[in-house]
Amino acid sequence: MNFASDNTYGAHPAVLAALSDCNDGAVMGYGADPVTARAEAVIREVLEAPQAVVRFVATGTAANALVCGQYAPRYGRIYCHQDAHIETSECGAPEFFTGGAKLVTVPGNCGKMQPDELASRMWRGAAGGMNGGRNGLISITNATEWGTIYSLPEIAAIADVAHEAGLPLHMDGARFANAVAAAGCSAADMSWRAGVDALCFGGTKNGAMGAEAVVFFDPAHAEDFDYRRKQSGHVFSKQRFLAVQMLALLEGGLWLELAKHANDLAAGLAEAILAAGGDLLAPVQSNAVFATIPPEAHARAKEAGAIYYLWPDKSAEGQDPVPIRLVTAWNTPDADVAALIAALKG
Amino acid sequence: MNFASDNTYGAHPAVLAALSDCNDGAVMGYGADPVTARAEAVIREVLEAPQAVVRFVATGTAANALVCGQYAPRYGRIYCHQDAHIETSECGAPEFFTGGAKLVTVPGNCGKMQPDELASRMWRGAAGGMNGGRNGLISITNATEWGTIYSLPEIAAIADVAHEAGLPLHMDGARFANAVAAAGCSAADMSWRAGVDALCFGGTKNGAMGAEAVVFFDPAHAEDFDYRRKQSGHVFSKQRFLAVQMLALLEGGLWLELAKHANDLAAGLAEAILAAGGDLLAPVQSNAVFATIPPEAHARAKEAGAIYYLWPDKSAEGQDPVPIRLVTAWNTPDADVAALIAALKG
Amino acid sequence: MNFASDNTYGAHPAVLAALSDCNDGAVMGYGADPVTARAEAVIREVLEAPQAVVRFVATGTAANALVCGQYAPRYGRIYCHQDAHIETSECGAPEFFTGGAKLVTVPGNCGKMQPDELASRMWRGAAGGMNGGRNGLISITNATEWGTIYSLPEIAAIADVAHEAGLPLHMDGARFANAVAAAGCSAADMSWRAGVDALCFGGTKNGAMGAEAVVFFDPAHAEDFDYRRKQSGHVFSKQRFLAVQMLALLEGGLWLELAKHANDLAAGLAEAILAAGGDLLAPVQSNAVFATIPPEAHARAKEAGAIYYLWPDKSAEGQDPVPIRLVTAWNTPDADVAALIAALKG
Amino acid sequence: MNFASDNTYGAHPAVLAALSDCNDGAVMGYGADPVTARAEAVIREVLEAPQAVVRFVATGTAANALVCGQYAPRYGRIYCHQDAHIETSECGAPEFFTGGAKLVTVPGNCGKMQPDELASRMWRGAAGGMNGGRNGLISITNATEWGTIYSLPEIAAIADVAHEAGLPLHMDGARFANAVAAAGCSAADMSWRAGVDALCFGGTKNGAMGAEAVVFFDPAHAEDFDYRRKQSGHVFSKQRFLAVQMLALLEGGLWLELAKHANDLAAGLAEAILAAGGDLLAPVQSNAVFATIPPEAHARAKEAGAIYYLWPDKSAEGQDPVPIRLVTAWNTPDADVAALIAALKG
Repeated sequence: MNFASDNTYGAHPAVLAALSDCNDGAVMGYGADPVTARAEAVIREVLEAPQAVVRFVATGTAANALVCGQYAPRYGRIYCHQDAHIETSECGAPEFFTGGAKLVTVPGNCGKMQPDELASRMWRGAAGGMNGGRNGLISITNATEWGTIYSLPEIAAIADVAHEAGLPLHMDGARFANAVAAAGCSAADMSWRAGVDALCFGGTKNGAMGAEAVVFFDPAHAEDFDYRRKQSGHVFSKQRFLAVQMLALLEGGLWLELAKHANDLAAGLAEAILAAGGDLLAPVQSNAVFATIPPEAHARAKEAGAIYYLWPDKSAEGQDPVPIRLVTAWNTPDADVAALIAALKG
Repeated sequence: MNFASDNTYGAHPAVLAALSDCNDGAVMGYGADPVTARAEAVIREVLEAPQAVVRFVATGTAANALVCGQYAPRYGRIYCHQDAHIETSECGAPEFFTGGAKLVTVPGNCGKMQPDELASRMWRGAAGGMNGGRNGLISITNATEWGTIYSLPEIAAIADVAHEAGLPLHMDGARFANAVAAAGCSAADMSWRAGVDALCFGGTKNGAMGAEAVVFFDPAHAEDFDYRRKQSGHVFSKQRFLAVQMLALLEGGLWLELAKHANDLAAGLAEAILAAGGDLLAPVQSNAVFATIPPEAHARAKEAGAIYYLWPDKSAEGQDPVPIRLVTAWNTPDADVAALIAALKG
Repeated sequence: MNFASDNTYGAHPAVLAALSDCNDGAVMGYGADPVTARAEAVIREVLEAPQAVVRFVATGTAANALVCGQYAPRYGRIYCHQDAHIETSECGAPEFFTGGAKLVTVPGNCGKMQPDELASRMWRGAAGGMNGGRNGLISITNATEWGTIYSLPEIAAIADVAHEAGLPLHMDGARFANAVAAAGCSAADMSWRAGVDALCFGGTKNGAMGAEAVVFFDPAHAEDFDYRRKQSGHVFSKQRFLAVQMLALLEGGLWLELAKHANDLAAGLAEAILAAGGDLLAPVQSNAVFATIPPEAHARAKEAGAIYYLWPDKSAEGQDPVPIRLVTAWNTPDADVAALIAALKG
Repeated sequence: MNFASDNTYGAHPAVLAALSDCNDGAVMGYGADPVTARAEAVIREVLEAPQAVVRFVATGTAANALVCGQYAPRYGRIYCHQDAHIETSECGAPEFFTGGAKLVTVPGNCGKMQPDELASRMWRGAAGGMNGGRNGLISITNATEWGTIYSLPEIAAIADVAHEAGLPLHMDGARFANAVAAAGCSAADMSWRAGVDALCFGGTKNGAMGAEAVVFFDPAHAEDFDYRRKQSGHVFSKQRFLAVQMLALLEGGLWLELAKHANDLAAGLAEAILAAGGDLLAPVQSNAVFATIPPEAHARAKEAGAIYYLWPDKSAEGQDPVPIRLVTAWNTPDADVAALIAALKG
């Protein structure tokens, strides 16, 4: 009964099978192999973006930080939500990959920036000269760190702020599958059609062992990206093993099935929490539940063996009601959810 | 009638004279000259810190950023007030000199952090692992960017937070002279005796052409600092010309006289603003006045030729009352102040 | 018949099986799982280094560059052979991870530095002050980029130069298995007993999909290493999948069997080349053969479908004799080698 | 009798007078003042480059490293002579300002690269992919670190290599005045007309206290340069004091007079050395003399109080003949030169 994160579970059997299937024989390294080419092509198809440049890395932090480094100079400003993964959870990777850019954080309920809040924080060169640095990029996460979803119009509104300022829009899509599955739109709708310039298309939380695709919809944006990836140690010699993981998830639509599974379980947990006298801290729109529950429900859940985090951290221990975070994964067992629901109910 | 900043005026005649006085003959470069040695010694005396390591650079941004780089690794966290010069006005220099550290800003009235606000934002490794990076240093500015003064107990309280967390305390003393003159204490009281580990002792705003001293009270803290300074292009070959500027200001106490002049004029302006129906946005404790004034007073001042900034920037144009910032310098003419006072009064 | 590199082949079946075996269930992420703990323990055992700190990354460039960043400051000097992988093949990764260190290259036959050549290039602070930066670390590769092996006394002699200068010794062990198998010594003999402070223990070229272990023999050397790894995007959330690859290779001694296979095949190729009228450009001591062969032999090999690189690059096309590089892998088929030998013979 | 370097002497009286002359009154800071504008204009006139972007910094290392950072990405390659100041004497500043670029050094007699030697070292992406990084810029020094002069055709030949590879050509002109005075050409001839894209126009060694101009002949090359300068702490608030130093040297041609003085004295020393049985290690074409002298001449010179460096460093102590470096400055007294000549003669 592990609800700690969607990275606590392993890889989907199809991913493991795909690793074996591409294991035989010798191919040229560093991405010059047919499996990588096919995986890139499939991602372009899924995104309906035949011109897009697609590259694979093994971690979400690498993907995000490389995009930040691609767009923002060392004197750049990167705008993101105050709870954005790039701000809170990457140990300063965007700062390192840019050589010193500044993350400028924007508040906003439930993990989402409001366009006017964002616009009001944009650095105005005219007034302040070079003091604050140069605007570099705007970054949003979808699904957000609070499990909510930016709707297509909401993304487009942020993209408008970005593009009016001449900035690119980056989407951290560590849970892109969950967002697309939740919105019921196409991957293209949720990315370039809404104004996204660079997408980190997450595989790891979606059933891969460790694989993410970085997608630049305009090939001109990808200039020199391969150097950045190489210099940061993120080019694999046996690159096919990265690429094939994404291929296994994307070919045949497995990625959306797995995301839907996680989303549906989270929705069930949300209902159970409300039924048990708890409250939701944010709408449950993907695979994460932020809620408060009565101490007794918390005690019963722990008793039943459920693993999850207090929110925002251990300092919440002893609060009444108890703030918690539950995350469901691509393969969280239905039985575990049922057991947790039963425990919450008492 | 220039009240735009304390860097709009030139250098004190004693500084220019000192440049000439040390101009003759040939000496070894890069700081291995007797003038540099004497200037270092005088600063140690003024600070009553015989063990301190003293180094000269030409700009305040260089001084601050070098200290940040000295203490914080690229995965470091630097805690400072949200209006700190290192956050708002250095184009990301601390981030560059550290290779990617993150400035974590703390709110607080009138440019001052409260120790508990600061403490509440400190990263707790135990709870969050490496996600947020490692705590690097705490930085305060005195006099602050709002012209207020951290009192000695206030500094000590911040130092306690720093030292309990095992972090050094940096003081951005671009207006250290103004702070010491205002507090009426010794330079030692306001620095190491209150717990400051590294001081950027400003000369430029105090009457130098461009000279600042970086002081590490514990020599162990200065390890490799000379490499950092050299690699960033801040070691002058004709180093004596930097050092002698500080020498001219510090020998004989000129630095405090000049700072007192600026402070006194600011106090006079503050009274005049209140008398003219204006309000102070922050207590006037050194050489800056943040205030709102009636539109008519603003119009008369501009008519009279006074130059100053609206606050926080031009976007304040047209507000009623008008928010403004006035800064007095080491040599702001009494007549200019009298003229502005007269204009404000109407 | 692929002799282009030892990264053109896939992963050993035991590695794939191990991935499956650790796939079930949920474990805590980022290395806090039992498989990672076991893999770390096994590496400590193999190295007879119970105090060593062991960490896993996915690429050799990441491993090397992280160690460089751990030891050398941005004003540091890193000494290595002029053909070292960190100098020629990592796109400046050591420079990036250090924030600007300088690689100082040392010539030497067949990929090996001579201690006196190295010593003569070491920066002497006393004479040159800070101009050249500060000595940071010394790095050797074993097996070298030329397929030769530093013997244990040779390593010790380099280590003496390093330690006398107060510097750590890093070993790039992308082909550590080949070196140990060739030398017939223990892993401890070839690393810490010979004076190596940090070892990049390669798995990828030895039969892993993509896994390397970074080993610091003195735990004090590993301080803050986890921050560096995290900030560069090299901490996997599903870390067990990295660790288990090394575990599969090291438990039971598979790593040495596989390395011996590659080494033996290379020795056979070397003999065949000499028999075919070719010459060796370097002694064949591990799994790489640098040689010149008659144009006819080259033509027959190509005709037979052999894939390999001209040396040092395509510009060698048309030379007589033809300089080539052949690399054998953990699973290069005996039949391929036999076929190439037959073709060379004519 | 100081011949250690051309930075051991102070500033020309005209420079000091100019500092005083622009000291009065208040002007806007950070370069928005009329003196800075005039100095920029004068440099454009001297260089016959009306479109050029001119910026001032205080040290040569800052100037060079900022240009490197402007042109070369962190994965860039910077080509320069093996004795180039940026390679040997800046403590890794180019590496730091680029975030990790690699300096690729080219041998060559007397401080000068031969175009074919340079061309042979250029990285060929086609053959080696991304391994070596991306070509960034080519840098030459004139006058060179050996006191020799690249002739105009020699510069043009290097520029051809650069431009054919799509790279800019940087000239480190710490002793640009000496080079122009020696060549008897115009400043334009020696820079943009010969193919130089960015010039670091040195003032410090030419009689300034500490001032250098960075000149981009194509304004498009200067994009964002002000951010880089600001972020590295090299924008002075009282910027006029930097600019006016260059103004004092350039207006009226003082810069060439001073350089000629230094050059002439060096020529005299060279003759004296030959007459005294010494040898020149390089042709004496500007203000530096690299030579070997008989031990007795060395002893007499030291006895007479002459200060100069053994070459390349103290390790030359005791050699016969004695390798030395003599540097003359803008104001080296004729009497000192006469005394040294007398001593050499014996």
